[in-house]
Amino acid sequence: MGLPDDIASVYAKNRERIGFVPNVFRAYAKRPDHFRAFMAYHDVLMKGEGGLSRAEREAIVVAVSAENKCQYCVTAHGAALRILGKDPVLADQIAINWRTADLSPRWRAMLGFASRVNEQGFAAGDDEIEALRGAGFSDTDIWDIAAIAAFFGFSNRMAGALDMRPNPEFYAMGR
Amino acid sequence: MGLPDDIASVYAKNRERIGFVPNVFRAYAKRPDHFRAFMAYHDVLMKGEGGLSRAEREAIVVAVSAENKCQYCVTAHGAALRILGKDPVLADQIAINWRTADLSPRWRAMLGFASRVNEQGFAAGDDEIEALRGAGFSDTDIWDIAAIAAFFGFSNRMAGALDMRPNPEFYAMGR
Amino acid sequence: MGLPDDIASVYAKNRERIGFVPNVFRAYAKRPDHFRAFMAYHDVLMKGEGGLSRAEREAIVVAVSAENKCQYCVTAHGAALRILGKDPVLADQIAINWRTADLSPRWRAMLGFASRVNEQGFAAGDDEIEALRGAGFSDTDIWDIAAIAAFFGFSNRMAGALDMRPNPEFYAMGR
Amino acid sequence: MGLPDDIASVYAKNRERIGFVPNVFRAYAKRPDHFRAFMAYHDVLMKGEGGLSRAEREAIVVAVSAENKCQYCVTAHGAALRILGKDPVLADQIAINWRTADLSPRWRAMLGFASRVNEQGFAAGDDEIEALRGAGFSDTDIWDIAAIAAFFGFSNRMAGALDMRPNPEFYAMGR
Amino acid sequence: MGLPDDIASVYAKNRERIGFVPNVFRAYAKRPDHFRAFMAYHDVLMKGEGGLSRAEREAIVVAVSAENKCQYCVTAHGAALRILGKDPVLADQIAINWRTADLSPRWRAMLGFASRVNEQGFAAGDDEIEALRGAGFSDTDIWDIAAIAAFFGFSNRMAGALDMRPNPEFYAMGR
Amino acid sequence: MGLPDDIASVYAKNRERIGFVPNVFRAYAKRPDHFRAFMAYHDVLMKGEGGLSRAEREAIVVAVSAENKCQYCVTAHGAALRILGKDPVLADQIAINWRTADLSPRWRAMLGFASRVNEQGFAAGDDEIEALRGAGFSDTDIWDIAAIAAFFGFSNRMAGALDMRPNPEFYAMGR
Repeated sequence: MGLPDDIASVYAKNRERIGFVPNVFRAYAKRPDHFRAFMAYHDVLMKGEGGLSRAEREAIVVAVSAENKCQYCVTAHGAALRILGKDPVLADQIAINWRTADLSPRWRAMLGFASRVNEQGFAAGDDEIEALRGAGFSDTDIWDIAAIAAFFGFSNRMAGALDMRPNPEFYAMGR
Repeated sequence: MGLPDDIASVYAKNRERIGFVPNVFRAYAKRPDHFRAFMAYHDVLMKGEGGLSRAEREAIVVAVSAENKCQYCVTAHGAALRILGKDPVLADQIAINWRTADLSPRWRAMLGFASRVNEQGFAAGDDEIEALRGAGFSDTDIWDIAAIAAFFGFSNRMAGALDMRPNPEFYAMGR
Repeated sequence: MGLPDDIASVYAKNRERIGFVPNVFRAYAKRPDHFRAFMAYHDVLMKGEGGLSRAEREAIVVAVSAENKCQYCVTAHGAALRILGKDPVLADQIAINWRTADLSPRWRAMLGFASRVNEQGFAAGDDEIEALRGAGFSDTDIWDIAAIAAFFGFSNRMAGALDMRPNPEFYAMGR
Repeated sequence: MGLPDDIASVYAKNRERIGFVPNVFRAYAKRPDHFRAFMAYHDVLMKGEGGLSRAEREAIVVAVSAENKCQYCVTAHGAALRILGKDPVLADQIAINWRTADLSPRWRAMLGFASRVNEQGFAAGDDEIEALRGAGFSDTDIWDIAAIAAFFGFSNRMAGALDMRPNPEFYAMGR
Repeated sequence: MGLPDDIASVYAKNRERIGFVPNVFRAYAKRPDHFRAFMAYHDVLMKGEGGLSRAEREAIVVAVSAENKCQYCVTAHGAALRILGKDPVLADQIAINWRTADLSPRWRAMLGFASRVNEQGFAAGDDEIEALRGAGFSDTDIWDIAAIAAFFGFSNRMAGALDMRPNPEFYAMGR
Repeated sequence: MGLPDDIASVYAKNRERIGFVPNVFRAYAKRPDHFRAFMAYHDVLMKGEGGLSRAEREAIVVAVSAENKCQYCVTAHGAALRILGKDPVLADQIAINWRTADLSPRWRAMLGFASRVNEQGFAAGDDEIEALRGAGFSDTDIWDIAAIAAFFGFSNRMAGALDMRPNPEFYAMGR
């Protein structure tokens, strides 16, 4: 019995674009409904319209995943950030500790808020939202920072629960 | 300018079924793509096939939301658990602290794992998975416990970031 | 062998006033000297003269007990706060998380200080005391906030150590 | 205006017995009702009948107060433990860290449980109670360990909130 | 005014061996006595006789530095571990989270103990030492694991206090 | 087989000066290279040139060791601080909790920074450095505060890993 066509097509696209099928897809393929729900939400967050660049979205994922010590996501999204952000050293810094990375003020504000959202029991205060607006983020941007940070906290936890391993190819990508 | 038809229809169904539109829908309706992705994933997790009853799924949401101190989710899903679980006292106990609630061994094992998944940096060990199998959970059930716990950690964080307020109607439901 | 008269009289008064004997009394009745010392201190704190209303005192108990995840005290004092505070929704919000409850500035300052006192190793700074005075609290009020918060931290721990269960009647009271 | 007679008599007794009035009495004397409630409960716990020696009771106070970093209580009860326990080196070890003190198995079990009670959100499990029984503690002893640990967590918090300073005389007592 | 001869010679050796002077040397060169004390201790720990291989010693440094989120040390010692350990993927896994890295039982025991030493307030219990002996470590090995873990906790803190930046050359080394 | 001459001479000097050999020397004497590296670094930090008095350096050691609950270092360096600082009550206060000790503004700033360095994952911000300069500390002083705090965090961990016991003589010294 084979993969559903839509999932097989995701596999094929990945083989063509990066040469291999990321293990997260292989894991989720065991539950096709979950695969589709995850991919759909992922694409809204990471490829949907909005004020954040694709590199900024990946930076949020990497910063939060590093705080959550997620082996799979730091590795896979670290590779994506090295490529999309065009600054592999900065990407590796964020993968270790965004607080001591050489960030622009915009990225520092963005990752600071992502990190707050990642805390257990966080609720945004007015001051925090005002500071983000002062740093140039719209309310939609603020939503997107929060949603990306929170969604990948979910993804980090699934990777941990399913003992997902990064494909070895990721380690050398974008260097 | 009105709501997209599919969202308007969700509003209508809620008004019919419970008499009001939960504020989470009003919040997400501002971003229809997010509304749809959230609802689709929610339905896979909470209404999809699987070995966990609907009450068990709600119990996971309430236990994790209480650990995350999420005002909206404890209130709204607490109401759902009172109704679906048919034991309002137990539901209220879980909303305060699942560890000191009068749980069956099955629920204690289930909520114990959900709580582990909710910890920052969790990665499941073989012992933990074996214990769950010993308590009668299949691998698919284990996936579902983890996915529900982790997804509502995401939802808790969105509720905190968007300062979502529970509708007052929830407090009296199921009592 | 029966209960000492003074304890039997507390039982009787409770049966008359609320229809049942709260389990905390049944637990402490096993050690009459402890029962009396507890009740005497309780009454000084909760019914003694002072600038805090009875609802405010219960709000402190509920907020601290929720932070300490005390099944018994959140349930029993949550019921008291719903009745004395005459705002059951607000009472339930405080029982989940006072930080995201719809509090007046006075209550926010009061519960903020109670929560600080509840932290391990807390020592009040001058700034903190000044802020409370600025919010209209006298030095005696500040003492009372601290004493109620700290005393119920003690009570929460006894409830945990003795595995005290809330009487089922509490859940519906004041709704 | 003078002190109430009963409080004046406590002052006098302390001057006679140890040569000075401990600052905790001076602090509580400002609220005579609180003074009396505190002293009454204190005496039930520290001087009441029971299976724990007075030195054991002080050891619990010192261990918990050290965990709570309470300047006043570590100093004052540290002095009491040096005197009552007749082993000043052991007393000073407990004042720093009971876990690395040279404890008998009985004291290690006793302080281990006191420390658990001191944790936020603690609820005793059956295993924990069984282990204490195995170490020779009766149910009444277990109650007393918990009550002393929890009550002095309250006292530690009051000392912090009131910025209570140890009398300098305590530092040299019992050496 | 130039560098002291012994420090200039360390600079020269590094330029010859790896092509650049690691920034940690530039930082410490401002305080030559500190430079010498640090280097002497470093060499005892990392190059002295003992049962741990050089790769094992670097693995301890990387695991602890990652727990301490030390930008400089994860980067510089991560490079060293990629080279000395001859398994760059494993080295990168340890740099993210040793707990979810593909470790041998020996390395898991070794890094588990290093991580315990890195905890605040750690004191080794007999069980822990027995387990390490059971995993084949001698008492001298156990000392070395502890000393390397603890010394680099010191080094991590200095890097944080001095805002030390990794040289960009480190990121590509050993890949 | 005897002690190496240089270590025997340290023993002799201690016997002459304080009447006994501190147990830390006996522990390290088992690894003479470690003994020498430790002593050399210790002397640079504690006896080297610089703007901090010897009492100030010991105060940093005591404050950090108390935070790390190090039985050996609080006891041994507590004794040193009582003697060098000429204020035994203040020394004992710092040994319990520097935050509630009667510190001068200079010592409060100094121990506040030492405590920050002692936190896991600390990285100094510009504001923090500015505040220290404002309190009269030079950049070299700031380095020394950080280095002493961090080095004794290392020493605390070694004492815990090696189960080092304070000599009983320390408890009475300087009182």
